[in-house]
Amino acid sequence: MVLSRAAVAWEANRPLEIEEVEVAAPKAGEVMVRIVATGVCHTDAYTLSGKDSEGVFPCILGHEGGGVVVEVGPGVTSVAVGDHVIPLYTPECGKCKFCLSGKTNLCQAIRATQGKGLMPDGTSRFSLKGKEIAHYMGTSTFSEYTVLPEIALAKINKAAPLEKVCLLGCGVTTGMGAVMNTAKVEPGSTVAIFGLGGIGLSAIIGATMAKASRIIGIDVNPSKFEIAKQLGATDVVNPMDFDRPIQEVLVEMTDGGVDYSFECIGNVKVMRAALECCHKGWGESVIIGVAGAGEEIATRPFQLVTGRVWRGSAFGGVKGRSELPEYVERYLRGEFELDTFITHTMGLEDINHAFDLMHEGKSIRSVILYNQ
Amino acid sequence: MVLSRAAVAWEANRPLEIEEVEVAAPKAGEVMVRIVATGVCHTDAYTLSGKDSEGVFPCILGHEGGGVVVEVGPGVTSVAVGDHVIPLYTPECGKCKFCLSGKTNLCQAIRATQGKGLMPDGTSRFSLKGKEIAHYMGTSTFSEYTVLPEIALAKINKAAPLEKVCLLGCGVTTGMGAVMNTAKVEPGSTVAIFGLGGIGLSAIIGATMAKASRIIGIDVNPSKFEIAKQLGATDVVNPMDFDRPIQEVLVEMTDGGVDYSFECIGNVKVMRAALECCHKGWGESVIIGVAGAGEEIATRPFQLVTGRVWRGSAFGGVKGRSELPEYVERYLRGEFELDTFITHTMGLEDINHAFDLMHEGKSIRSVILYNQ
Repeated sequence: MVLSRAAVAWEANRPLEIEEVEVAAPKAGEVMVRIVATGVCHTDAYTLSGKDSEGVFPCILGHEGGGVVVEVGPGVTSVAVGDHVIPLYTPECGKCKFCLSGKTNLCQAIRATQGKGLMPDGTSRFSLKGKEIAHYMGTSTFSEYTVLPEIALAKINKAAPLEKVCLLGCGVTTGMGAVMNTAKVEPGSTVAIFGLGGIGLSAIIGATMAKASRIIGIDVNPSKFEIAKQLGATDVVNPMDFDRPIQEVLVEMTDGGVDYSFECIGNVKVMRAALECCHKGWGESVIIGVAGAGEEIATRPFQLVTGRVWRGSAFGGVKGRSELPEYVERYLRGEFELDTFITHTMGLEDINHAFDLMHEGKSIRSVILYNQ
Repeated sequence: MVLSRAAVAWEANRPLEIEEVEVAAPKAGEVMVRIVATGVCHTDAYTLSGKDSEGVFPCILGHEGGGVVVEVGPGVTSVAVGDHVIPLYTPECGKCKFCLSGKTNLCQAIRATQGKGLMPDGTSRFSLKGKEIAHYMGTSTFSEYTVLPEIALAKINKAAPLEKVCLLGCGVTTGMGAVMNTAKVEPGSTVAIFGLGGIGLSAIIGATMAKASRIIGIDVNPSKFEIAKQLGATDVVNPMDFDRPIQEVLVEMTDGGVDYSFECIGNVKVMRAALECCHKGWGESVIIGVAGAGEEIATRPFQLVTGRVWRGSAFGGVKGRSELPEYVERYLRGEFELDTFITHTMGLEDINHAFDLMHEGKSIRSVILYNQ
């Protein structure tokens, strides 16, 4: 057991409180990690808002971290004390039907317990004065010390700065992976990216890495256009500048539609526009954003019968243990940068400010540094 | 000019009338074909019902034919008098953006005029006593003599019986191609086929040719189950036998969902069920059926974000001139049979009876034989 500084979400819609929580030692197949840095992501805010039907309180949020292994439980073989790791909310057991399919990154080995805020054995490692506190997304990176199943850790190159590559634990990988891994955008393609937050900007980077010839960034907030262009957008479009549907505008701009589109917001109407701006015959649209509970997408089936494809992507389709370490290597080789994403850094005590900045649209990512 | 027996659709919702129409000689790039046999398809009935927004009257329906070239216009090089051909409502020019993409069979070279019931030069070759009669789907196989653009003809092996392989001009290719060409079903896959009419039964054949290990046929009419099983369905399911959504039943039957599903009806609610019965992580659903004007499909985006793919297929994704002849060869090699589909044959004078049989659900395909 260690004592750990943590930001506890006691209940929905209430600021996090910094507490000294007790973190129990890792059990068989589990690993204790000292988190060095963690991003604050919209998904944390979504759960804190109470809208997430899987939200369990009290809990310790956070799922975009980077850290160092400090203790391993019995039977752990793939990581050792001192290894640098990125926690994975999508684990990779390598043995379940999903992992063995080779067709998806959605390992289901610990899905049931993870969704309930528990470790695979059905218990929590977090407590405060005898009261159990739930895990979150299997990661709980808003605690300096956290415990994860071995299968939920990507071992990465120690040369990588954890306070930067922690962003590969969620947002950046989600956007880049959706382009390169899920859609497999080919060189010369035309790409539309709806929503220029962290995911959308990462998708722009992915599109430049995939050598797309035209990258159209779409947002109703024009303050995001400059950074989008810096990262590689060739065009930026504000739907508010037009009095007709944005899909029509894009089809016209691109002589028939785009080859690939990405919805990075979570708005079901935008998802429809993203599909319908695709080129007849082959255009593919990828949903990345998470819509509100119960919301539905719709379109005329003719859109699909005439060759468009509608798909989605979670964590960029990236398999955490077998593929994420290579993303870190590509970062280290200078193939993409992360500094642009990190608009704010702060200590854990200021984490509620990070949520405020995000809600106000003033940050791309705030990164919490534990040793600050 | 030749005189030709033809079934004329004078207006929506009125029986066809057998007339002697005048068929003008083929112009540059055009070919006159003597139709030997033609199937009567639901799409003909759909247009005749008046629901098809592109329907033009009077016209000569029919799009599932087989015939012999009797005259070629100036500049025609790819077919010659005496060649056996299947008319293509989806042509293949080999030069447009769509053909050159290599990603689709939806050649758009003559789309605009074809949709208006006209030849590419904007005129019709059909008339009766001076009154112009429109073409239909660029094929008009309900006339013994018809004129088509050269790019809308697949030249096939003369050994193939036209009164059978005419079905490859629409339904059978649509179903088989959706499985083998659009979805690319792999050996060992689990497949669900919604709707056991001509398209659905063809999809079953396609699934057996693709060596699917489990082929589930779904229909509310159990009289179709025996033939589905004969053709290769391993399971048959009637949604009326269950008091919960059919997608739930199928997910349970298949330990998580099917690898591929095909909607062969044109019902938007069934399209949703077909998507949602797919396996998380990789299941793909292909819409083949044509829904009513203005109808929309819907689902929760979570279905896609968790790895399902929604796509569509027209003419089975098959490129008419470069790929359809190989389907004929596979038929000649005995890889599949067509006799099961042909439940009725009759002369042109009985064509309205063919529509009646179809409406009453009593036929899979009626084939009109011109020389009967």
